[in-house]
Parts: sequence; C-alpha cells; structure tokens
Amino acid sequence: MITLYHHPFSASSRFIRLVLAEMGVSADLQLERPYERRRAFLLLNPAGTLPVMEENGGPPICGASPILEYLDETRGYGLGDRRLMPDNPEARAEMRRLVDWFLGKFDAEVSGYLVHEKIMKLEMPRSAGSTEPDSGLIRVARANVRHHMKYLGYLAGSRDWLAGPRLTYADLAAAAVLSTIDYLGEVPWDVDDHARHWYQRIKSRPAFRTLLTDRAAGMPPAPVYANLDF
Amino acid sequence: MITLYHHPFSASSRFIRLVLAEMGVSADLQLERPYERRRAFLLLNPAGTLPVMEENGGPPICGASPILEYLDETRGYGLGDRRLMPDNPEARAEMRRLVDWFLGKFDAEVSGYLVHEKIMKLEMPRSAGSTEPDSGLIRVARANVRHHMKYLGYLAGSRDWLAGPRLTYADLAAAAVLSTIDYLGEVPWDVDDHARHWYQRIKSRPAFRTLLTDRAAGMPPAPVYANLDF
Repeated sequence: MITLYHHPFSASSRFIRLVLAEMGVSADLQLERPYERRRAFLLLNPAGTLPVMEENGGPPICGASPILEYLDETRGYGLGDRRLMPDNPEARAEMRRLVDWFLGKFDAEVSGYLVHEKIMKLEMPRSAGSTEPDSGLIRVARANVRHHMKYLGYLAGSRDWLAGPRLTYADLAAAAVLSTIDYLGEVPWDVDDHARHWYQRIKSRPAFRTLLTDRAAGMPPAPVYANLDF
Repeated sequence: MITLYHHPFSASSRFIRLVLAEMGVSADLQLERPYERRRAFLLLNPAGTLPVMEENGGPPICGASPILEYLDETRGYGLGDRRLMPDNPEARAEMRRLVDWFLGKFDAEVSGYLVHEKIMKLEMPRSAGSTEPDSGLIRVARANVRHHMKYLGYLAGSRDWLAGPRLTYADLAAAAVLSTIDYLGEVPWDVDDHARHWYQRIKSRPAFRTLLTDRAAGMPPAPVYANLDF
C-alpha cells in the first residue's frame, strides 16, 4: 500500500497523483499543509516539502524526482509500451530536464506565485504569515507565463509529446503544473495553439479526472477548468 | 568524448567534475559564465544553468541530476563495487533526496549567497548587474550554514557515508557544495566533529584534487582550502 502526503495545489503533488493514476496504482492520499510545519511530517521530510510517499511502512521517499525514479524502478518495466520512461539514456535526460523545467522553473516563475497569492493565502491562518495577495507578484507571473507558453508550444509543435514520440513523465509534470493555474483561469490559451491542443489531449486522459474535482477553500475553479473543449 | 560546460564556483558543476573523476572518465572542461547569457549556450540549455554535458556530439544533457542519472545508466554497472548508486530503490530515493538537499536547499540557503556575493560579483562586469557585496545576505548565509552543518553531522554520525554504508552521489554532492564555501573560509568546522571527519575523508580522495587548484579572480582561497588536516 502506498501513502502519498500531498496538497491539492502543490504542482509536484499533482504530478505524482497523475503518475500513479497512469500506472493504475492506488494510493492513500493524506492532505498535508506544509505551512503548518507539522512535527511528524518534518520527521518524514526535514525539508518540509511535498510530495512525500511511503510504501508498506518503508522509509519516506521525498520529492517529485526521487518518487518518479522509485515508481519507475519498481513498476516501469511491467508497464511495457505504457512505460513513462524513454528507452535510451539521451532521451531520458531530455525527459528529466523537462520535469525539472516544469516543476522547478515554471513553478518558481509562474504557478508558485499565482497559487500562493490566490489560493494559499486564503487557506493559511494569519499566524502562518498570511497577508493580502501581492498584485505585483501576480503581474510578474502573468508576464512570465506567456514566455513559458511559447516554449511549451514550441515543444508540443515539434514532437508528438513533450519529450519525444511517447507520453512520458515530462508531459505529466507539465500538465500538473499547468492544471494548478488553469484552475485559476490564469493560462493564456491564446498564446499557442500547439500548447492548447497538447493540453486538450492530456486533459482528456482518464488519469486526469482525479485532478478535476479538486477544490480550493473560498476559491471556486474557473469555468474552463473541467471543460475538455476550452 | 565528453564535454562539460561548467563554472569553477558552480556547486552543481563541481559535483559532476567529482563524479567524472570518481568514475575515471576524462572530460573536456569548457568554462561558461552563465551571467553572460551566451546565445550558443542558451541553445544548448534554454534554462541558462550549469552544468551541461555533451557526449560524442550527442544532445545536451542539462542539469546535475539528469547528468548523474545519465552517467550512472551508461557507466554505473561497469564500476561494480565502486558504483555510486545504491542497490535498492529505497536507498536510491534517499541518495536522490540528499543530492537535491545539498545542490538545491543548501545552495539556495547558504553557498549560493556566499559565492554570488563574494566571488561572482568580483568576476561579473557592471553591465551584468554587479554591485557591492550585500552584507545582509552574507549574514543570512552564515546563520543558515550552522543549521546545515548540524544536519550534515547528524547524517555523518549515524551512517558510514551520508546515504548509507557506501560512498554515493550524495557524498559528492555535499562535498561539492561545501567546497565552494570552504574556499572562502566560510565553513564553521567547529559545529560538528562528525561533519569535519566525513569531509576529511572525502577531501583526501584523489578525485578531489582537481577542485583544490580552482582559483577565483581577485579572491585567493582561504588557508584551510587545500589543507587535508584542517
């Protein structure tokens, strides 16, 4: 049995939920609010970050990339053609670069700001440092996201999937991070048609359904969020 | 033939140099100054970050973790007992968590500030945004490093090597990032004896020698830097 400590608006947590769903692996989802700095959680992951996974009471597996590699090492081979890991070392490196790009760079420059300012600040108590949304940071994110959509469109337009001819972890990482700001209606879908068509394909996969029922306290989803034809 | 785009004071670049040296793989080192945002380099890695590796004119492999995995996939098996990757998935996850901890968290909270303020600002032209060192950031790094040394000491005191019974990529990542601030005399070696003894062991390895001759423009190394008995 797998336990996943997650938050519905942590992009890296969403990524692992998508990976588990694509693999057909069920998990016990435990909601964790990192800003609470819960002692038992910090003992699992001293960095205090999400996601964290445990299997059968074994040691905690901390962070999106270590979990990705663990799941691939323990389940990948059995998935055959549906394996999310490319076959050769160069293609794997490109997949890993893109996972880092979306969960690291995209989240740091775009979705991290938007989710923190528009969702987490509503959820966090004042004692955890919550204040009014910072409109300056929201403007920065809205400028940055347009550059990122162009790059996503470039990738989607020159390859079948983001890292090559097959669906890989890179697509799930990109979709996870985009889905957090699609909830807020903050994805400029007009920037690039390749990006929009790629997202339509991935959003219509059965694995994606679990994300579409996520709700943030006090912030309903944008109308586009659960719409497959946006 | 391997080409490595690196900077002598990029912790992640130092990590890959240590990995290559431990594996006995020679590489053509190409100095890259990321703040120049050189166009040919951005075509290799749109994120503009180091390190980037190429093998035999193949596609660029971008980032410390993707390079680690590539090198292990292509050379690890042949190294037998000297392989830097643990044998089972749980232990691999712990190694990967620690690589992320040192190259990510430690660098973001400690060495990134110190290296940028004390070395890179001397090297960067004014046009790249160079200003005087920020003493506030240096103070923050000096406070943070003491917590990190305690955690390093806890790991080194409870295991033979940082991730378990064998030398792994985690030790090389930790040593790489520490070495950048040891150059500046900024490691508080009095905090924890386990941490100091662990670093003495790793610093005396032949692979480490390549780092000890690195020099920063206008900033000579602290006396402790090349001293194996500090």
